[in-house]
Amino acid sequence: MARNERASSPGAPVPVPRQRLDAEARRAQLVDIGLELLRTRPIDQIVLDEVIERAGISNGLLFHYFPTKRDYQLAVVETAAAELLASLEPDRTLAIGDQLRGGLEAYLDYIEEHPLAYRSITRSAGSDEAMLAVVERIKDAIVELIAEPIVPEPDALLRLAIRGWIGSAEECALLWIRERPCDREVLVDLLMRAGLHLVALIGELTSGAPLP
Amino acid sequence: MARNERASSPGAPVPVPRQRLDAEARRAQLVDIGLELLRTRPIDQIVLDEVIERAGISNGLLFHYFPTKRDYQLAVVETAAAELLASLEPDRTLAIGDQLRGGLEAYLDYIEEHPLAYRSITRSAGSDEAMLAVVERIKDAIVELIAEPIVPEPDALLRLAIRGWIGSAEECALLWIRERPCDREVLVDLLMRAGLHLVALIGELTSGAPLP
Repeated sequence: MARNERASSPGAPVPVPRQRLDAEARRAQLVDIGLELLRTRPIDQIVLDEVIERAGISNGLLFHYFPTKRDYQLAVVETAAAELLASLEPDRTLAIGDQLRGGLEAYLDYIEEHPLAYRSITRSAGSDEAMLAVVERIKDAIVELIAEPIVPEPDALLRLAIRGWIGSAEECALLWIRERPCDREVLVDLLMRAGLHLVALIGELTSGAPLP
Repeated sequence: MARNERASSPGAPVPVPRQRLDAEARRAQLVDIGLELLRTRPIDQIVLDEVIERAGISNGLLFHYFPTKRDYQLAVVETAAAELLASLEPDRTLAIGDQLRGGLEAYLDYIEEHPLAYRSITRSAGSDEAMLAVVERIKDAIVELIAEPIVPEPDALLRLAIRGWIGSAEECALLWIRERPCDREVLVDLLMRAGLHLVALIGELTSGAPLP
């Protein structure tokens, strides 16, 4: 907003950029309400009437931004996924194992704070292709975060191997938030063992050693 | 049915068992139609009108057996899950590694033959508790199949570790049927490496060795 204000001469109307910015802010506000609601209920149980009431807007205005309930749910899950991803940015000055552990701890922090958002990101796509695409994008972004210090441009097989580890972390985390079968540090140790095994495996695969 | 026919004296009416059997057969027929439809579309895109038409029954009769669309979808996914599980029964005369490989091959056979049923089992629960319960039951049954020759009664930590491997297999299999990033034998080798690492880990955990 500051940039637009600087660019316009005093008093000159800047209707198009101003309007676009307002629209963006309104859209962000509506998505934020969804993220807030996602703290207490899963994405498929968010009722649009409550969003409208909280935002103090008309039914029609919500549908202007999000023509269908699914569009709204998609935008909320997309934003939740982006927040999860932003929280995973590793400290690249650390050793690879410590980067992996740091990422895992940040991942579990997010899940503990936003269990329903996490479940929505990982398990609410069903057969919805747009929602599946969100899930695919975030998982591929996590693959890149993990691969970067080892193999900056992972091939299809390495991507598959890393996605397998992410799948393992996801399954364990979902089970863990449902049932808490062990202390969090035990969960971290379990996933770290599998993760370090993966790092060793990547080394092997990258050196071109044949599969057994 | 043969048993009922033997047990009844000739000509005597056996209305209750016969009726119950008919109801079960009708229910099974309706579920079979769902399994057939699941070959070409995901569970949430199965239209009840088509089920009614294929079965040649009335709307009311379908709703007699399945009061809601969700009840019907649940029954279809439950049956698909039971079929997947039945296909995994290992040959217990083999070495543990070979049992694991056999189970993995059978798992991938099922997925290759029923990709949409597999996606429905693993990813269609959303926040539906009854559907989640189906998924939990099948995963725990697979945990038992894997654990039996190693640790017949796995504790919470071993169950978590094995579920982690199942999550890894699931993620890799779903990615693989979507994109086919490598030959199937490479996928099997990748998952076998992680699986054998898990078997070694179970040995360590069971011997009471402390986690690092």
